[in-house]
Amino acid sequence: MQKIIYIVNGPNLNLLGKREPGIYGDTTLEEIAEMSKNAGKQNEININFLQSNDEGKIVDWIQESVIKSNGLIINAAGYTHTSIAIMDALLSIKIPIIEVHLSNIYKREDFRHHSYLSRAVNGVICGFGPYGYIMSINAISNIIDN
Amino acid sequence: MQKIIYIVNGPNLNLLGKREPGIYGDTTLEEIAEMSKNAGKQNEININFLQSNDEGKIVDWIQESVIKSNGLIINAAGYTHTSIAIMDALLSIKIPIIEVHLSNIYKREDFRHHSYLSRAVNGVICGFGPYGYIMSINAISNIIDN
Amino acid sequence: MQKIIYIVNGPNLNLLGKREPGIYGDTTLEEIAEMSKNAGKQNEININFLQSNDEGKIVDWIQESVIKSNGLIINAAGYTHTSIAIMDALLSIKIPIIEVHLSNIYKREDFRHHSYLSRAVNGVICGFGPYGYIMSINAISNIIDN
Amino acid sequence: MQKIIYIVNGPNLNLLGKREPGIYGDTTLEEIAEMSKNAGKQNEININFLQSNDEGKIVDWIQESVIKSNGLIINAAGYTHTSIAIMDALLSIKIPIIEVHLSNIYKREDFRHHSYLSRAVNGVICGFGPYGYIMSINAISNIIDN
Amino acid sequence: MQKIIYIVNGPNLNLLGKREPGIYGDTTLEEIAEMSKNAGKQNEININFLQSNDEGKIVDWIQESVIKSNGLIINAAGYTHTSIAIMDALLSIKIPIIEVHLSNIYKREDFRHHSYLSRAVNGVICGFGPYGYIMSINAISNIIDN
Amino acid sequence: MQKIIYIVNGPNLNLLGKREPGIYGDTTLEEIAEMSKNAGKQNEININFLQSNDEGKIVDWIQESVIKSNGLIINAAGYTHTSIAIMDALLSIKIPIIEVHLSNIYKREDFRHHSYLSRAVNGVICGFGPYGYIMSINAISNIIDN
Amino acid sequence: MQKIIYIVNGPNLNLLGKREPGIYGDTTLEEIAEMSKNAGKQNEININFLQSNDEGKIVDWIQESVIKSNGLIINAAGYTHTSIAIMDALLSIKIPIIEVHLSNIYKREDFRHHSYLSRAVNGVICGFGPYGYIMSINAISNIIDN
Amino acid sequence: MQKIIYIVNGPNLNLLGKREPGIYGDTTLEEIAEMSKNAGKQNEININFLQSNDEGKIVDWIQESVIKSNGLIINAAGYTHTSIAIMDALLSIKIPIIEVHLSNIYKREDFRHHSYLSRAVNGVICGFGPYGYIMSINAISNIIDN
Amino acid sequence: MQKIIYIVNGPNLNLLGKREPGIYGDTTLEEIAEMSKNAGKQNEININFLQSNDEGKIVDWIQESVIKSNGLIINAAGYTHTSIAIMDALLSIKIPIIEVHLSNIYKREDFRHHSYLSRAVNGVICGFGPYGYIMSINAISNIIDN
Amino acid sequence: MQKIIYIVNGPNLNLLGKREPGIYGDTTLEEIAEMSKNAGKQNEININFLQSNDEGKIVDWIQESVIKSNGLIINAAGYTHTSIAIMDALLSIKIPIIEVHLSNIYKREDFRHHSYLSRAVNGVICGFGPYGYIMSINAISNIIDN
Amino acid sequence: MQKIIYIVNGPNLNLLGKREPGIYGDTTLEEIAEMSKNAGKQNEININFLQSNDEGKIVDWIQESVIKSNGLIINAAGYTHTSIAIMDALLSIKIPIIEVHLSNIYKREDFRHHSYLSRAVNGVICGFGPYGYIMSINAISNIIDN
Amino acid sequence: MQKIIYIVNGPNLNLLGKREPGIYGDTTLEEIAEMSKNAGKQNEININFLQSNDEGKIVDWIQESVIKSNGLIINAAGYTHTSIAIMDALLSIKIPIIEVHLSNIYKREDFRHHSYLSRAVNGVICGFGPYGYIMSINAISNIIDN
Repeated sequence: MQKIIYIVNGPNLNLLGKREPGIYGDTTLEEIAEMSKNAGKQNEININFLQSNDEGKIVDWIQESVIKSNGLIINAAGYTHTSIAIMDALLSIKIPIIEVHLSNIYKREDFRHHSYLSRAVNGVICGFGPYGYIMSINAISNIIDN
Repeated sequence: MQKIIYIVNGPNLNLLGKREPGIYGDTTLEEIAEMSKNAGKQNEININFLQSNDEGKIVDWIQESVIKSNGLIINAAGYTHTSIAIMDALLSIKIPIIEVHLSNIYKREDFRHHSYLSRAVNGVICGFGPYGYIMSINAISNIIDN
Repeated sequence: MQKIIYIVNGPNLNLLGKREPGIYGDTTLEEIAEMSKNAGKQNEININFLQSNDEGKIVDWIQESVIKSNGLIINAAGYTHTSIAIMDALLSIKIPIIEVHLSNIYKREDFRHHSYLSRAVNGVICGFGPYGYIMSINAISNIIDN
Repeated sequence: MQKIIYIVNGPNLNLLGKREPGIYGDTTLEEIAEMSKNAGKQNEININFLQSNDEGKIVDWIQESVIKSNGLIINAAGYTHTSIAIMDALLSIKIPIIEVHLSNIYKREDFRHHSYLSRAVNGVICGFGPYGYIMSINAISNIIDN
Repeated sequence: MQKIIYIVNGPNLNLLGKREPGIYGDTTLEEIAEMSKNAGKQNEININFLQSNDEGKIVDWIQESVIKSNGLIINAAGYTHTSIAIMDALLSIKIPIIEVHLSNIYKREDFRHHSYLSRAVNGVICGFGPYGYIMSINAISNIIDN
Repeated sequence: MQKIIYIVNGPNLNLLGKREPGIYGDTTLEEIAEMSKNAGKQNEININFLQSNDEGKIVDWIQESVIKSNGLIINAAGYTHTSIAIMDALLSIKIPIIEVHLSNIYKREDFRHHSYLSRAVNGVICGFGPYGYIMSINAISNIIDN
Repeated sequence: MQKIIYIVNGPNLNLLGKREPGIYGDTTLEEIAEMSKNAGKQNEININFLQSNDEGKIVDWIQESVIKSNGLIINAAGYTHTSIAIMDALLSIKIPIIEVHLSNIYKREDFRHHSYLSRAVNGVICGFGPYGYIMSINAISNIIDN
Repeated sequence: MQKIIYIVNGPNLNLLGKREPGIYGDTTLEEIAEMSKNAGKQNEININFLQSNDEGKIVDWIQESVIKSNGLIINAAGYTHTSIAIMDALLSIKIPIIEVHLSNIYKREDFRHHSYLSRAVNGVICGFGPYGYIMSINAISNIIDN
Repeated sequence: MQKIIYIVNGPNLNLLGKREPGIYGDTTLEEIAEMSKNAGKQNEININFLQSNDEGKIVDWIQESVIKSNGLIINAAGYTHTSIAIMDALLSIKIPIIEVHLSNIYKREDFRHHSYLSRAVNGVICGFGPYGYIMSINAISNIIDN
Repeated sequence: MQKIIYIVNGPNLNLLGKREPGIYGDTTLEEIAEMSKNAGKQNEININFLQSNDEGKIVDWIQESVIKSNGLIINAAGYTHTSIAIMDALLSIKIPIIEVHLSNIYKREDFRHHSYLSRAVNGVICGFGPYGYIMSINAISNIIDN
Repeated sequence: MQKIIYIVNGPNLNLLGKREPGIYGDTTLEEIAEMSKNAGKQNEININFLQSNDEGKIVDWIQESVIKSNGLIINAAGYTHTSIAIMDALLSIKIPIIEVHLSNIYKREDFRHHSYLSRAVNGVICGFGPYGYIMSINAISNIIDN
Repeated sequence: MQKIIYIVNGPNLNLLGKREPGIYGDTTLEEIAEMSKNAGKQNEININFLQSNDEGKIVDWIQESVIKSNGLIINAAGYTHTSIAIMDALLSIKIPIIEVHLSNIYKREDFRHHSYLSRAVNGVICGFGPYGYIMSINAISNIIDN
């Protein structure tokens, strides 16, 4: 049976390609979803690509992922640095998890250098733009297979 | 007329008994609700037992509790340490409030040692597992009666 | 065509006039909405006056404001001090933004002295009570016209 | 054979009911001892109720409790925040321990928010006044029985 | 009898319009004085518009204002962040006080984010350029009248 | 009836005149007791001059002083910087209290700059050597008389 | 020849007896000058009693004191906590210096707990109100004589 | 002409597969070099795989890489957290750079959470074990081609 | 005449061999006293081996040691990290002093990394278990002889 | 036309050669002025050598220098570490500026290690005594000529 | 077969006996090597005594020691406080390790109070001068034998 | 006999004129060496101009300089902020030392504001570009001659 991966995106990522292209580039989230689904196909993985501005909704999806999927990729955007609730949700699931960021957060403001989520994930990928999503899918596929 | 108590539970507590039993034990939230209702009956108190992963929803319930109840017991889980919004909601109500935690948060990571909520409540109970809910109900009953 | 301004209010502000009048005064949020609409009329501005306890909803409205309005006034209450998600939403829009607070937050607890939002707005007004909303409307009108 | 509980009280608690009633209420320590012994009887527990202003004496009693009792309730007052010696004594005993405080220490000065003892106890109860001692006895009885 | 307002300006503001126009704009202090006097006239207020580079002189004027005026508007510039002496002077007077800043100080260096003065004033206005002075005059007029 | 003053001295002060004369001078504690009693006589005050190395003993004496004396002078030496228990004892008594130090503690190591006791006393005198005890007696006499 | 003492008072002390009597009492600075001159007479000391709101003026007087006087008493008020310039002036003179504060600065805001001046003086007296000036004169007389 | 990539490994990585396999796994550095060269071949890239315990040698290689290669992958191990010299070397070269770590450094000791290097690289990959080197080669190939 | 050494042990060390053997090993304090006396004999030193849970008692013994002994070995246990009073006692004596710890305190909790005592002793030995006492005796014998 | 340089000296520098010669040497400020004028002559520069204890006066001179001179050398002494007002004045002028200190401030107290001014100047010279003024004049001449 | 111990000395220790004898004494490193070899002989241990100013070289020797020796004694001098690379090397070897310092580092500057190495060693000996090397050899011999 | 000066340059300075010319200018290190030798000739000083990326090598040269030269000029680049080993080497030599930086390090990132070396040198010169080397040579010549 085919594997399923949840890709959960946090607040303001629906604006991608529209806001601050100097930092985030000009690819839209819809285009990243498309790229991700293609990368999923090559790894025989179905992608469930989600976005919400709501912290509680993101916690819901993480809880759901453990039942319905084989792995989770998360870009929690602004909640990365403030949400213990999302970290706790990640800590409670036992499937592979990858944290991804479009920009190199270590080149930005100090308050973006700390991630609550990192201590709850298998690995972190940041600074590769939309291509980071493809890297994440390949890597999670590699983890699931091994 | 019979007294009513709101018991408000925060993010990921719906997973109780399923996640990290080493820390949280293996009782489910449904079982705690059951225990709480029984303890309520012994104190002639109706229990309105609620859970949400959503910070805004929790603020809504706190605001509602002041109209519809005689006291509030809150286990805000991960929001305990980050939510000024929930603290402000608690500060705005004039009914008895008890903060309860299942685990002894002072034995865990440093960022769990600080609670914004504590300064807005009558008392704090932590480290007694599900039994802490029964202690909270007995205590709030005692406060209401005195 | 007539200008439109979004006025977005954060958690617990729906309780205004009911809670802690020593700090917030006894004017209700409905009365402030009324005052704001009148002040809008004098500046030939339509006011869209909103309130939510939900961080995600506030992010949604900010994203919406850039399409449907000419400016934004925000009183994020408790989220002022904790929400990078709301700050990121503000950073992504290119219309004038004013941050307003009813009380002088610098006379209150230390954790209320820092605002994530301030770095994303044109100007800050605090300590003038409900009259601060009228000042904000006059000021944003002045910015839009210049 | 009947169970025994040590209740150890720290510096200045002998002044209860006499000093700062705004913070500590007007019940004397003798009255609390009386209430505790009654609560003990209902749980078939003998209470050894002690007080000292001396840090070393408190360490002695903790060491003694592990030989002569089934559980320990401690209100270390001012030593709560400064005594690694008392914490080490608590860490060295394997009977149930409950930390209790009359006032809600999180509403008081910053230096009272940190407790060295909390990391060495089963649970913490604070803010319930003298009634907190009865809660502690009930809770420790519950722990011993389970 | 006509009301009088002191407007006290701190160090280097005499250079306005000449230095760092990227931050402070190109309006001179003389032009702001003119604008302020006009705004005063509309509120039937006489404006006493002052500037000094000297901390002691500013303290003198604040002490004088309580005798000779109905309110004080202060832009202490660099002394905002370092002068307890000016804060103490403000704390000692019982007339309405508004703190105004031309630029949004929260977008600038960290050491400009903290103001000693804020805890001694009614309200704070920052980021609106010279127009902030007019807002201050309107607001102080509103406070005096109410 | 003649007034009584307790003068309580903390750890190692019994070594005065013997240790580190460069810091503490070469007067012994017995000589200071003598000087104090003489100064007491001139103010018609009986002096109860005490010293202990034991924190608990000092707490005992403070508690005793409120019953048996009209005022307290305390030099808690090393406990000045670490004892919340002594501070709490001082907070619980309503007679005049003066904190005295022989050396100027602000010229010494950083950890000697902070005193827990200062917030619980009427006044502080430091740096005057043994003469500081006479100043304290004169001052407390002045406070009692006014 | 008769001895001379400079008593230098810092910003806002000219308002004594008029501002915040809850903190500073209701004695005016003129009355304190009078009391000081009387105390001087009893010690055969001429008092040069000065006040300025200006940091530079205070530095000038300290420099002058070393030529024209036998000792210095300083209450630098708000400059106590911020002025390295005044501290350096004190460090450069070799006559006895006493720092005096009317109120107990350790009971007030945190930023008033640190004094730059203390490391440059012989002794510190705080919390005794106007009587502290008399204590200072007696003490400096004692130092000069020994 | 074929592209060349430098892969620079820092102190103690020569012990891989021998030390602390619980953290670093049991693959040796030689095996990782082999895997990297294979991954290079698939991307038509020659790999220059280097290791040194010497900070200065690593700086030398980084300086050399800008002349002789098309991109740099660096795992600076212990120097990651302490070396401004290596960061400066990375800042001085204008070829693509990827920082890779075998373990998830955010799950380890606090002093391993901060990387000086991150602010000088295109992207960071951590927590994927030896597979992280293959991800880095694929990613740098992708950057070079775009 | 034979030399005498005081060996002073702090709180809870009387429990050695009984508590937390994972950290402290299973040798009792009595056995360490025996080993120490044997080691003393080989160096022709009489050992006065003492233990107390009381901070004041430890200060007393240190003061006594300077009169009755040729050197001091101290394991202050929990008071190591909190007692300025013990540090002051050590600073006041001019005989050789060695600080010894059974466990390597730098591998334990952060609050055990700082010792007030270290700045008052000749040398520090930690992490060698009971053998550290023998090392201390040999070393202090070596210091006394040189 | 001949170039002019302002050399502005801060508080207490008028005492040079008289106070703390161990730190500042025994050259007077008058002698430094003489040396500076000679060094000026060799570079065909007129020197305007100034000193004040007053922060506001120093700001005035800096503002004046931009009109009347070709460069500024400043030794702000105690204001170096506390004055944002002087830093702002320096930031507002576009002529070359050199910060000079007689002593090596990094060998002195911690609070002298931080300079607000350094971020507003071309270069810093410290630790060379009076010769540092000659170095500054040569350097500023070099900057003006290039 | 005879045991071998590596003794690794860090930067500047080759200058011993020549630099700052007030802190380090006047014994040269060659003399310490001689003393160490003699102490080795008494324990039937061959000593490999090494020194380098190079961090990488020290890492090399630590890695080598695990193959060629039975234990390691390290005095990393200035690298003690800054080198995670050396700490990681120590963490990777499973032979006994002792950290030794000639001076009592806790009496020196603050930045010398923290050692990265301490968490990777069996025990620490500091403040005994060259004799500390002999203590280390005796102690490591004791550890190897038990 | 002619004097000799060592000029020691740290990591990445060999890239000068090639990297980040916006910060470091476009003069190469070879050109600076040439300028330095010319400046040396004018002061009758031979210059030994050295550069290494290796911390240990720099320590070696500093140790060598005390034997073979009359003074040392050091630009330790990235090691300035991290190397206690280099600081210790500087502390151990008794010849004049000058620290020089090309750029004004106080205008750059926070971690470049602190120099370990400054406390071990005679004086510091920063912000004058290559000309700072000539200033250093002139200054060290002046120190040697006086």
